[in-house]
Amino acid sequence: MNSPSTEKLDIQKVATSRIGEVDFNNLTFGNTFTDHMFECDYKNGVWQKPTIKPYGPLTISPAAKVFHYGQAVFEGMKAFKDDDNRVWLFRPEENFKRINKSSVRMAIPEFPKDIFFEALTTIVKMDKDWIQPGLGNSLYIRPFVIATQVGVSASPSSEYKFMILMSPAQAYYTGDVRVEIAEHYSRSANGGVGAAKAAGNYGAQFFPTNLAREKGFQQVIWTDANEHKLLEEAGTMNVFFRVNNTLLTAPVSDRILDGVTRKSVLALAERDNLTIEVRPVLVSEIVEAARNGSLKEIFGAGTAAVISPVSAFSYKGTVYELEKQEDGFAKRFKKELMDIQYNRSDDPFGWRFEVA
Amino acid sequence: MNSPSTEKLDIQKVATSRIGEVDFNNLTFGNTFTDHMFECDYKNGVWQKPTIKPYGPLTISPAAKVFHYGQAVFEGMKAFKDDDNRVWLFRPEENFKRINKSSVRMAIPEFPKDIFFEALTTIVKMDKDWIQPGLGNSLYIRPFVIATQVGVSASPSSEYKFMILMSPAQAYYTGDVRVEIAEHYSRSANGGVGAAKAAGNYGAQFFPTNLAREKGFQQVIWTDANEHKLLEEAGTMNVFFRVNNTLLTAPVSDRILDGVTRKSVLALAERDNLTIEVRPVLVSEIVEAARNGSLKEIFGAGTAAVISPVSAFSYKGTVYELEKQEDGFAKRFKKELMDIQYNRSDDPFGWRFEVA
Ligand SMILES: Cc1ncc(COP(=O)(O)O)c(C=O)c1O
Ligand SMILES: Cc1ncc(COP(=O)(O)O)c(C=O)c1O
Repeated sequence: MNSPSTEKLDIQKVATSRIGEVDFNNLTFGNTFTDHMFECDYKNGVWQKPTIKPYGPLTISPAAKVFHYGQAVFEGMKAFKDDDNRVWLFRPEENFKRINKSSVRMAIPEFPKDIFFEALTTIVKMDKDWIQPGLGNSLYIRPFVIATQVGVSASPSSEYKFMILMSPAQAYYTGDVRVEIAEHYSRSANGGVGAAKAAGNYGAQFFPTNLAREKGFQQVIWTDANEHKLLEEAGTMNVFFRVNNTLLTAPVSDRILDGVTRKSVLALAERDNLTIEVRPVLVSEIVEAARNGSLKEIFGAGTAAVISPVSAFSYKGTVYELEKQEDGFAKRFKKELMDIQYNRSDDPFGWRFEVA
Repeated sequence: MNSPSTEKLDIQKVATSRIGEVDFNNLTFGNTFTDHMFECDYKNGVWQKPTIKPYGPLTISPAAKVFHYGQAVFEGMKAFKDDDNRVWLFRPEENFKRINKSSVRMAIPEFPKDIFFEALTTIVKMDKDWIQPGLGNSLYIRPFVIATQVGVSASPSSEYKFMILMSPAQAYYTGDVRVEIAEHYSRSANGGVGAAKAAGNYGAQFFPTNLAREKGFQQVIWTDANEHKLLEEAGTMNVFFRVNNTLLTAPVSDRILDGVTRKSVLALAERDNLTIEVRPVLVSEIVEAARNGSLKEIFGAGTAAVISPVSAFSYKGTVYELEKQEDGFAKRFKKELMDIQYNRSDDPFGWRFEVA
């Protein structure tokens, strides 16, 4: 299915950029889009002409399958500008592989690697003025695929649209993240689609997350649907625990997304000779560690916020506050990752990918 | 949230009907749409002016949340024409309640009952020529809601679109349905969204269903995600088992959709004094019943096909063929249900709802 591109990338530039209208100091995450977007349709069994064109609305049938059956997957990645105005992506190959893995699980045809990279590098270059220099600023890149065939019968679409949108982002300060450990609701099942970045996984979390918010917790840490005994991941972040000096995180599975940030944190931790345990993490052991003072840190790891330290968690009605760590693992990994992303340190793992 | 309508229904009729172009003897399910559609937007916390207008494409941002987070729910119901050209719905109140129940789980605002019924009856009346008389012909009605706010950050939309599309349908002959019992993949989890008609639940089934199809099974019967020991439901049908003369079906739960057809079959079975057991149904007992000859029937129950007899099931590599029942429960319930739907019998339960 991963057929090579036969058609040349078609480019339609905007007549006038909208960049002058944007207040880069007051960006809401994911709300402002750059001048261009990428679009490529799938029909008759092949991906058609790939096109970069002015960002704008779609014309689509209300009977398109994406609206009815949630046959849709996406990715989230970022471009960074260094002090010499060079533009970098971070491990884009991982996102490429993951969107195709998600697509397979959602019965969507895989996208060709050559078109993906040509589209990605071309559009990032075209809109590179939208990337502000400075640590924390970035361009959030959203590749996604939606099922476009008309038909209200529950079967896979024969037509799709692959798109890339881009949105300038500021340093994403999440503030104090307080989390609730899930005791009733759940995010994914064995044999389900939790490991895919399938659109429906996210909408399904909004209601239980709203309930947590009403109680003062910004995020839910999901547990296994079966017994709610294992700590799995948060809405859009994998989760790490530091007990004394050991770094703990759950293994990825068909319930847990294989996060690029998670993978990178583990690689850094290994390089730095930290003690790492990638194994099922019990709610009970973390509660116990919080009680006896050995739980030093909890943090989320994901593209949007890089690393988000958690300041407290709630479980069965009890709130466990974590002591603030001035020089904790969270801070250290965030710095190490961002130094690589913004070309401020060497790149021993070959994670940086220069675009322009 | 279920705010009453304040605005009058706005009606824009088509200039010329497309009905003449339709071959009613060669309809593919869910592919042909009537002249009109219903649309009502939600913004600033209220449902806006409800509108019936010509069926046609939407103009929507590629950054609309429905594409990225699958925040979308739907319903499926039918209108029937009797021999006097009177038009009937079947238990529409149930679909209304269920779409709002689905919406709550997906953090979508509920839709007002008065607008729902006014829209539904008005649009069905307007397009009633699209309903062919004759047993088996119907108009499939698809209410749905999609998240339309622009934004690629994973949080509930502040804007939505509620729509109704309608598609003429012929007697839905499913042929011999052969099913595979799920042993690895799963459809829903405890605490998940399985009980909601959430769009993403359907896309998630396409891949495992494709795998079953390649082996010659049209449908999968899902089992509990945890141990794959309990028989739950099929893709768009609840499932019944007849062991000797006992009718068995799983109780609804947060994993299983509360089907209107299922509910109606149970009511008919009770009225007819059949022995009914609504309780968790073990895969092992059905396999055993198939082996010892006490398993007489398996059938699916859902709006699209009403009742679909299953002719064989596969479990752990063994295929169990069921003997064809000329006068089985499946046939009897199908006739009883359709007689009520098409106004060919009395309606002791008050299930019919006259539209025109
Ligand atoms: C469910 C889920 N877990 C974890 C992550 C973190 O993955 P990554 O580090 O690749 O952004 C994401 C977001 O991307 C996610 O959606
Ligand atoms: C998952 C699922 N189960 C069961 C059903 C049957 O429900 P109903 O009888 O209300 O159509 C449907 C379809 O509507 C469904 O989508």
